[in-house]
Amino acid sequence: MNKIITFGEVLMRISPLGNKKFIQANNVEFYFGGTEVNVGISIANFGGDVKHISCISNDFIGDTAISYLNKFDLDTSAIVRSGRPLGVYFLEVGAVMRPSKISYNRSHSSFSEILPEMVNWEKSLEQGKWFHWTGITPALCKGAKETLKEGLILAKEKGMIISADPTYRSALWKYGEEAKDVLTDLLQYSTIFIGGVNEINEVLGTSFGYSNDEFTEASKLLIEKFPNIEKVFDKIRTSINSSWHKIRARMWNGVEFKETQDLDITHVVDRIGTGDAFAAGLIHGLQKFDDYKAMEFGAAACAIKHTYLGDVNYANESDVISILEGNTSGRLNR
Amino acid sequence: MNKIITFGEVLMRISPLGNKKFIQANNVEFYFGGTEVNVGISIANFGGDVKHISCISNDFIGDTAISYLNKFDLDTSAIVRSGRPLGVYFLEVGAVMRPSKISYNRSHSSFSEILPEMVNWEKSLEQGKWFHWTGITPALCKGAKETLKEGLILAKEKGMIISADPTYRSALWKYGEEAKDVLTDLLQYSTIFIGGVNEINEVLGTSFGYSNDEFTEASKLLIEKFPNIEKVFDKIRTSINSSWHKIRARMWNGVEFKETQDLDITHVVDRIGTGDAFAAGLIHGLQKFDDYKAMEFGAAACAIKHTYLGDVNYANESDVISILEGNTSGRLNR
Amino acid sequence: MNKIITFGEVLMRISPLGNKKFIQANNVEFYFGGTEVNVGISIANFGGDVKHISCISNDFIGDTAISYLNKFDLDTSAIVRSGRPLGVYFLEVGAVMRPSKISYNRSHSSFSEILPEMVNWEKSLEQGKWFHWTGITPALCKGAKETLKEGLILAKEKGMIISADPTYRSALWKYGEEAKDVLTDLLQYSTIFIGGVNEINEVLGTSFGYSNDEFTEASKLLIEKFPNIEKVFDKIRTSINSSWHKIRARMWNGVEFKETQDLDITHVVDRIGTGDAFAAGLIHGLQKFDDYKAMEFGAAACAIKHTYLGDVNYANESDVISILEGNTSGRLNR
Amino acid sequence: MNKIITFGEVLMRISPLGNKKFIQANNVEFYFGGTEVNVGISIANFGGDVKHISCISNDFIGDTAISYLNKFDLDTSAIVRSGRPLGVYFLEVGAVMRPSKISYNRSHSSFSEILPEMVNWEKSLEQGKWFHWTGITPALCKGAKETLKEGLILAKEKGMIISADPTYRSALWKYGEEAKDVLTDLLQYSTIFIGGVNEINEVLGTSFGYSNDEFTEASKLLIEKFPNIEKVFDKIRTSINSSWHKIRARMWNGVEFKETQDLDITHVVDRIGTGDAFAAGLIHGLQKFDDYKAMEFGAAACAIKHTYLGDVNYANESDVISILEGNTSGRLNR
Amino acid sequence: MNKIITFGEVLMRISPLGNKKFIQANNVEFYFGGTEVNVGISIANFGGDVKHISCISNDFIGDTAISYLNKFDLDTSAIVRSGRPLGVYFLEVGAVMRPSKISYNRSHSSFSEILPEMVNWEKSLEQGKWFHWTGITPALCKGAKETLKEGLILAKEKGMIISADPTYRSALWKYGEEAKDVLTDLLQYSTIFIGGVNEINEVLGTSFGYSNDEFTEASKLLIEKFPNIEKVFDKIRTSINSSWHKIRARMWNGVEFKETQDLDITHVVDRIGTGDAFAAGLIHGLQKFDDYKAMEFGAAACAIKHTYLGDVNYANESDVISILEGNTSGRLNR
Amino acid sequence: MNKIITFGEVLMRISPLGNKKFIQANNVEFYFGGTEVNVGISIANFGGDVKHISCISNDFIGDTAISYLNKFDLDTSAIVRSGRPLGVYFLEVGAVMRPSKISYNRSHSSFSEILPEMVNWEKSLEQGKWFHWTGITPALCKGAKETLKEGLILAKEKGMIISADPTYRSALWKYGEEAKDVLTDLLQYSTIFIGGVNEINEVLGTSFGYSNDEFTEASKLLIEKFPNIEKVFDKIRTSINSSWHKIRARMWNGVEFKETQDLDITHVVDRIGTGDAFAAGLIHGLQKFDDYKAMEFGAAACAIKHTYLGDVNYANESDVISILEGNTSGRLNR
Repeated sequence: MNKIITFGEVLMRISPLGNKKFIQANNVEFYFGGTEVNVGISIANFGGDVKHISCISNDFIGDTAISYLNKFDLDTSAIVRSGRPLGVYFLEVGAVMRPSKISYNRSHSSFSEILPEMVNWEKSLEQGKWFHWTGITPALCKGAKETLKEGLILAKEKGMIISADPTYRSALWKYGEEAKDVLTDLLQYSTIFIGGVNEINEVLGTSFGYSNDEFTEASKLLIEKFPNIEKVFDKIRTSINSSWHKIRARMWNGVEFKETQDLDITHVVDRIGTGDAFAAGLIHGLQKFDDYKAMEFGAAACAIKHTYLGDVNYANESDVISILEGNTSGRLNR
Repeated sequence: MNKIITFGEVLMRISPLGNKKFIQANNVEFYFGGTEVNVGISIANFGGDVKHISCISNDFIGDTAISYLNKFDLDTSAIVRSGRPLGVYFLEVGAVMRPSKISYNRSHSSFSEILPEMVNWEKSLEQGKWFHWTGITPALCKGAKETLKEGLILAKEKGMIISADPTYRSALWKYGEEAKDVLTDLLQYSTIFIGGVNEINEVLGTSFGYSNDEFTEASKLLIEKFPNIEKVFDKIRTSINSSWHKIRARMWNGVEFKETQDLDITHVVDRIGTGDAFAAGLIHGLQKFDDYKAMEFGAAACAIKHTYLGDVNYANESDVISILEGNTSGRLNR
Repeated sequence: MNKIITFGEVLMRISPLGNKKFIQANNVEFYFGGTEVNVGISIANFGGDVKHISCISNDFIGDTAISYLNKFDLDTSAIVRSGRPLGVYFLEVGAVMRPSKISYNRSHSSFSEILPEMVNWEKSLEQGKWFHWTGITPALCKGAKETLKEGLILAKEKGMIISADPTYRSALWKYGEEAKDVLTDLLQYSTIFIGGVNEINEVLGTSFGYSNDEFTEASKLLIEKFPNIEKVFDKIRTSINSSWHKIRARMWNGVEFKETQDLDITHVVDRIGTGDAFAAGLIHGLQKFDDYKAMEFGAAACAIKHTYLGDVNYANESDVISILEGNTSGRLNR
Repeated sequence: MNKIITFGEVLMRISPLGNKKFIQANNVEFYFGGTEVNVGISIANFGGDVKHISCISNDFIGDTAISYLNKFDLDTSAIVRSGRPLGVYFLEVGAVMRPSKISYNRSHSSFSEILPEMVNWEKSLEQGKWFHWTGITPALCKGAKETLKEGLILAKEKGMIISADPTYRSALWKYGEEAKDVLTDLLQYSTIFIGGVNEINEVLGTSFGYSNDEFTEASKLLIEKFPNIEKVFDKIRTSINSSWHKIRARMWNGVEFKETQDLDITHVVDRIGTGDAFAAGLIHGLQKFDDYKAMEFGAAACAIKHTYLGDVNYANESDVISILEGNTSGRLNR
Repeated sequence: MNKIITFGEVLMRISPLGNKKFIQANNVEFYFGGTEVNVGISIANFGGDVKHISCISNDFIGDTAISYLNKFDLDTSAIVRSGRPLGVYFLEVGAVMRPSKISYNRSHSSFSEILPEMVNWEKSLEQGKWFHWTGITPALCKGAKETLKEGLILAKEKGMIISADPTYRSALWKYGEEAKDVLTDLLQYSTIFIGGVNEINEVLGTSFGYSNDEFTEASKLLIEKFPNIEKVFDKIRTSINSSWHKIRARMWNGVEFKETQDLDITHVVDRIGTGDAFAAGLIHGLQKFDDYKAMEFGAAACAIKHTYLGDVNYANESDVISILEGNTSGRLNR
Repeated sequence: MNKIITFGEVLMRISPLGNKKFIQANNVEFYFGGTEVNVGISIANFGGDVKHISCISNDFIGDTAISYLNKFDLDTSAIVRSGRPLGVYFLEVGAVMRPSKISYNRSHSSFSEILPEMVNWEKSLEQGKWFHWTGITPALCKGAKETLKEGLILAKEKGMIISADPTYRSALWKYGEEAKDVLTDLLQYSTIFIGGVNEINEVLGTSFGYSNDEFTEASKLLIEKFPNIEKVFDKIRTSINSSWHKIRARMWNGVEFKETQDLDITHVVDRIGTGDAFAAGLIHGLQKFDDYKAMEFGAAACAIKHTYLGDVNYANESDVISILEGNTSGRLNR
């Protein structure tokens, strides 16, 4: 009863080295990522026992993706294979006032073929303790949404903890259903809400502001409407520019509001997947610590992710604990 | 009246360096290619004035593709842009007895959106002398086939020379029409046939063998059925293994059969696009030389393409002429 | 009547990756640049129709240089070829308190052969709207100065706008004429002066200080001496160290003094060509906006150039406008 | 009952790219290998269920090594960790008449700490079907030899098939025992002998020659002395030079002598681990095919390994079968 | 009488590019370093005549190491060769709050074989002016300590200046002697002490704090106990995080306390060897300047080392002098 | 009396990796070379004590060049520095029937400034045993020729052995003197002639053919005309194509004609500097072996150079001896 389950698309990321644009490079690097698998890998790196469920192309690119997940010791036995190609995204990394840019090639990807009958949820959730989902999956296509919903229903039945990161991305949601309706439906099965006022406003149709007080009000209202939701955790990014961010987190856990100090990321290496690192740190933390320390663990996990290239967080548990203990001066570790 | 027109999909090729597989790399290189644009770029490198017509994604990848074509001084003014992503193919380069492997991501690419009304053929064929098409384009989707057909009709009206390389690839042709029917239709507008007995058999439904005599018989029959076709040129590859090929060419030009000597490619650098280099060399050669020398020029262009990385042939006219003059010993050129 | 004309040497830049020195590397990268062609490419990236005139080596390095310009869709048809090699500069990129170092190999380069009779100015300035020159060109050799002067005379006759960036570099000017005399002569044909008190002092033999008031006085005196000059634009760099700069701009447009806010470049990627990006942004801006917004556009163009590797500015118009609109926090652009 | 067990040192290989020497490079690549784990990974790539047992350093290099094994889906749960560093070998890859050179740093590596009490053989051999060992392991140190011997005794008890590749390398064997004595002891537990006349001569103290007849005589004598050994398989390499090899295999299976055709490897990419690929192919083949076809499978696996960079064989079962079916001309695989 | 003698282990450093971890890379770079040789190379770059004494592996890695020292024109004629492998360390470079990590493979390295009889000190110290040693060497093994001690005795006899950098690293000192005892013994021969309160406390068994006053008290006590020591120099690092440091230095030269301004290193490129750069700058400076300027030279040398990749300081004397003259704004050096 | 003296230009070579052209790359590698310094470095690698004399640019590129020579332990103390840039050559490496191409930038290089008064020949030839020169140096400029001549006169006076490799390259010799006259003059001082019938014909104005008989006749006539010349050695290359060469050598040593077997270089890695490797091997061999074995050593040195990237031969004496002993099958060297 200790398996963490993640479900979602695995994407290949292709980007030039450093701050180059595609137009000035012909050497590029590739990584694999995807919001849910990023969470899964990060939890595995913290020592969790993670199973990721997905639909991946049946070619050498798909083989490479699965091998990438195996590398982090994820359980990939429930992944199904598809004749369509793996989703790809191209990334140009910005700097200072230049934003990073992403171009997607995912709308007809292998994951877009997924259907409820392709996943044996009963078997997949064996030994399951925690199920994490995000708003990206139901935004992709109907099949993804319905497959997710079946999983959530069973996970709830089995008494698993269900965390939701309902990230709203308007460029998705093209298959004819409304984000608000779908997220409202899926949030019924969830116990931990990872998101801020934007996401609450999207789901409730409200217009709360960003202050701590309004966040608290919004969280209370969310819990009122979704009594299954117990706690709300929000990560806040302050961007000085593309290369310099600050991260803190705040929470309403049904009882009290708390927030962490800012962590100052003066030299961002790679910001992709940092929100996923927060979610992963939080999920891992909530299994070991109290709510506040879990949130601090999540914020520190998020912060340190900014120092790793690629979509996934390579930090292990002691790397993050060390930051919580105040070791942020980067003393050489011999 | 000296423009060479090519029309077809531009693909991004992504492959690890050397003989690595994706599973053992995270550094990869990208190039752009596509059978018709390969022909166009090669002709431009021989000094031709080439316009390529295509439909390319409206993002930074598409910008990079167009910039790649500009680099070779192709006229890209008639290219239209699409909201869909550029087609991609992934390549693992083999060696010796290990074959190279390709995995495509093109079925919903930007080019798949093309429709006849998106191309202003009248304007595009201004100053047009030669139109080259291949069997890949009509194999992709109905829109591509119909756009091509409109172009061919106008090109014929304008008295342009039309060369056809009806490469048959069974993995394509998924949109509901038969290759044989479509090719038969499109070959009506063509004057130069670049292909061998396989392609003739596919079009005529015959079963000629590979001997020179059968090739001549097949060519005669083809010309009988398609009186607009004047000449047939065939490139023959003998593969010792992935790293060692031999190339020769033969022709039936309505009057006589001729064939070239084998060119021995003892150390293949990159075989992608070598057939396109043959077509390009032939098209360029037919504008300057007699049929036999044009074929020799095509065969030498094909051979030297095996020494360039990427899909396109970087050889200029004098590089190829030098091979025709017997300079194949690779003497250092100071 | 919309061609922007730039004239000047194209150099090959060779530098190790990152902050390495040549002594510790054997992998290097090359780019092409040169102050005027940098301006030209940047304007082309903003959507301008640019023709660059130069003299480039007649070998595979020269072919590569021209192909580099074609990539950005510059009109390269007026470039002449020379038997001498292309100019080269070697760059070691510094960091923090370590300055970058440049070593030139340009004194006998292909451009040093240029003579007035090699450029057909009448044809080159067809459809010409704007002519941009810098003080580097007349500093190189007599032939370059005289070729430039012929171009300026004709450009003035044709009523073109002429912008001058009279950058003074004392290490050049070896061929026997005085910078002051030559620049004084060439400034007669110019309408826009891109430079600060250093350049004005060099031309007028004055010793104005750096304050805004002295800048204004200097500008007024310049315009008094050169009544053809209408406006003076000055870009100001504050360097905390090699890795952290601030940029602002100021102007005297004959009517009023204005200056922009500082743009803070906390993590410099590449500072080469940033002055050229200012000139390009200004020239582009003056064709679309009022003087102040044009200067702001130039300053933002300069700032964002610091985030691109190589000599040229890859930003397009909307990238720069976005900064003017205050989007400097580097929000991810999906 | 389908687990394949391999036991041995995992080494980090560090080598410059291509044919460079360390003295002329500062970019190098690393891989992991080791004769037994190479066999294990290759079998896993053929679809086998492989568990590798080893002792690996307890640092980030060791983490990377284990992650490398996980990537190929090996069972790494029985690997123990050591405070000593992982063994390393440095490789300079030769060409033509220049031999490759290896320099080892392994004598005080993490594996050198292994002792019988560190491996729980009972648990490790659960579900075990096949145990493969080589002469490298007992050559390293007494602890390795004794740990291996305990494993072999239990494997024999459990009725597992035991294959031995008694590679004799005189530079090892420094800890005070004689190769001949130790190998004689360990061969008692083995059923499949993978080696040629050199190895037989070393074990028996004989001096058979290389002819097929002498190989057969030697094999018969070996089986007479070690009645547990049932079959002898020998891979023969003919080296034209460092870049061009030929591979064939022969066997005496107690009943008949057979040999395969030569496979011609005209362009060697990487010869490290090719003997291990033969052993892996043979072990995999003996579980599915008759002896001759198993040997052919092994020889083809060995041959194709020469086309992959690194120590391990990336070929899957169908890649090898395709060679057995005569597809050695390297036809492009779309 | 102008030779600077350094004695100590030469290590090979292997690290992934940028901020990558080994687990996410297979491209790595190597450098050579070691605290004493870093000092030697840096002094050679300042123009000093340096001889480095060491014991280096007798293989192609050792050849590469010696060639690396030759590159900087060090006298390598006294280096002896060993059958053991060269020591290696693996480095993962951190960023912001992520510390860099080092894993060593040195305990049985070539240098660990060194014995007094292997070094001909009489010949090695010919023309010797200065001998520099550090606390790393006697911490490695008894042979290293005794070899060093013989050298120090002879150096003192010959009246050489002897500088000691008694860096205490608790992970070393495994061979059975106490750091305090050994360092106390070796400090008897030394005249310049390069270290702070940590090192003084370790040697004297005291517990001084970090204030300037306590540093002065500690230094006075040290000189009282070791009357041969004349001056104490201390470099102080303030780490904002892994990517942003500040450096200053302070001294008690027997007469007065002085300290330098902080040098702000806003973008650390590589912090390895920066302490060695301080020692080298100080040693070089004490031969040319007064104590305070020598210390300033050392601090500036330390600061600029943070901008060079690798273990050694590439700055020459004028690069450092330029910083002392206040040129820290990184103005481009054409 | 054991110094080998070489005198000539040091060039920087810049070339893309593998078989790429500049137009398709922006990553390039640099090396240093030059025909005489290649000979010097190769002899140093065989164990010789070599001093190279040259004139090198006084910038960081020149520093890098000198550091490159130091790396091989050449004596660089007699090198003078110049304000002009170091000569550069750009190389595109061909394959199969594609020849490699070189473009030079050397005509106004630092070496072109050399004058007799800049070299202190008396001091430079101290301990001199052998002086090697080539026909490239006197072809570059008058100063180079005269400096060389002064050196030769003194070398002859001192009784040194003088070897001449009068390589004739028609693209040089632009300064107004005839190759034939100059070479005739300089050959008076030489004792060993390294060249074939082409060079003899150039010097004598004859037209001997390539047969062994004609080579012998030509050599006899050469020695008749230049009685100081004692022996003639000729290396013969048979190029199947750019990637596959064969090398043999022949000699007339005043007494007998002899020739070696062909060495088959089936996979050429880099052919630049292979003639220099022959000269170096011969010069080294003539000091240790009889004429025939010296020639064999030279031919084997030449052959193995084809397997090293860059201009210089990395083989040491035992690497070459091993080939002479017949070890050309590339057996792995552990």
